[in-house]
Amino acid sequence: MTTAAGDIRRRSGSYANGLIRRNEILKVASAQFAKRGFARATILEIAEACGISRAGLLHHFPDKEALLEAVLVERDAEDRARFRPYGQLGRAAGILRGMVDLAAHNRLVPGLIELFTRLSVEATDVEHPAHVYFQTRYARILESTAAVLGAGVSEGAVKPDIDVTSTALRLTALMDGLQSMWLRDRTIDMAAQMETAILEALTEAGGREFLDTRISP
Amino acid sequence: MTTAAGDIRRRSGSYANGLIRRNEILKVASAQFAKRGFARATILEIAEACGISRAGLLHHFPDKEALLEAVLVERDAEDRARFRPYGQLGRAAGILRGMVDLAAHNRLVPGLIELFTRLSVEATDVEHPAHVYFQTRYARILESTAAVLGAGVSEGAVKPDIDVTSTALRLTALMDGLQSMWLRDRTIDMAAQMETAILEALTEAGGREFLDTRISP
Repeated sequence: MTTAAGDIRRRSGSYANGLIRRNEILKVASAQFAKRGFARATILEIAEACGISRAGLLHHFPDKEALLEAVLVERDAEDRARFRPYGQLGRAAGILRGMVDLAAHNRLVPGLIELFTRLSVEATDVEHPAHVYFQTRYARILESTAAVLGAGVSEGAVKPDIDVTSTALRLTALMDGLQSMWLRDRTIDMAAQMETAILEALTEAGGREFLDTRISP
Repeated sequence: MTTAAGDIRRRSGSYANGLIRRNEILKVASAQFAKRGFARATILEIAEACGISRAGLLHHFPDKEALLEAVLVERDAEDRARFRPYGQLGRAAGILRGMVDLAAHNRLVPGLIELFTRLSVEATDVEHPAHVYFQTRYARILESTAAVLGAGVSEGAVKPDIDVTSTALRLTALMDGLQSMWLRDRTIDMAAQMETAILEALTEAGGREFLDTRISP
C-alpha cells in the first residue's frame, strides 16, 4: 500500500517535473524563434539554452515543427485564458474591451509579439510548417470578431450601419499592423490605438459601456 | 568625327545595355528575396536566374546588401512616380485617393508585397541591413500622411476633431496589416478596406471629393 502510494507520488512527481521542463523548453524556444527566426533557430541551440541535451529535448518534442506548434498552441491557450473573463460578461462591449486589454498585455511580451508577427508573414507560404495553424487562427479570429460585432448591433452597442465582416477584418489587420509598428517604435500605444478604432464602430451607449468595462488582469 | 560619334553611340549603347541588365537583376533579385527570404537568397542563385555569372552580378552590385537596397530604392521610386499625379492635384482628398489606388496597384505585384511585408518585420531587428531604410521609410510615410490629413482639415475635407498623427499611424498600420492578410487570402480587397477607413476620417464634402477623384494609372 505504502509502496503503491509512493509509486504514485514518485510518478506524479516525475510528471510534474516533466511539465516544468516542457514549459521551460517552450519559453526558451519561443525566445530563440523570435530572436533567430524559425528557419535559423536549431534544436541544439534551444537544448543548450535549456541546459539539456539534444536527445533530452527530442524526448519532449520530436522535431522543430512540433516545438513550434507547441509554442503557438501554448500562447493561444494563455490568450484565451486571459480573455475568458471578458467573454463571461456576455456583452459585446466588454469583449471588445478584452481586445484592447490584450493589446496592452502584448507590450509585456515583446519576444512573443516578434515571433508571431514574423511567423504570421513567413507562414503565408503554403509550405511553411505553421501555415495551417495561422490560416485556422485568422479564420477563427475574424469569425469571432464579426460575431461579437453582430451581437453588439443587437445589443445597441455597435452602430447598426457597419458591415461587421469588413469591420472585423480591419480591426484584425490594424492589430497586426500596430504590432509591427510597435516592434519598430516601442513608444506606440497599441491599446490606445485599438481603443480609438473600436470606439468608431460603437454607438454612444456602447462606447460608454466599453470604456467602463474594467477587469483587473 | 565618325569615330568619335561611333564611340559615343557604342558607349551609350553599352550604358543602355547596362541599365537593362541592372533592371533585370533587380527584378529577379526582388522575386528571389520574396520567395526565399533575404537571409536565404544567395547572390549565386540570383545570378544564375539572370543567366549571368556571380562576377557579372557583382559588377553591378558589390554585395547582397547593396542589391537589397537597390531593390527597395527602386520600388520607392516607382511608387513615388505612381503617386505624383495625385500630389499634383494639390488637394488632400486627392492625395488620400492616391493611397487607395496604391493599395489597388499592390495586388498586381504580390512578390514585392511579400518582400516588403517580410522585410519590414525582419528589419525591426536593429542589425538587419534594411533596418535604417525601413525606419526612415516609415517616419517619412507617417509624417507625410499626417501632413496631408492636416491640410485636409484646413480644406474642410478631413473631420476637424481627429488627431492627425494618430490617424496617420492607424491608416499606415492598417495598410500593412491588410497586406499580410491579403498574402494569406487573395480575395481580400485592400483598396476597398482602405477606402472605408479613409472615409471615416473625411467630412461629407471631403468624402465626395475623395470618391470623385479619378486618375487613370
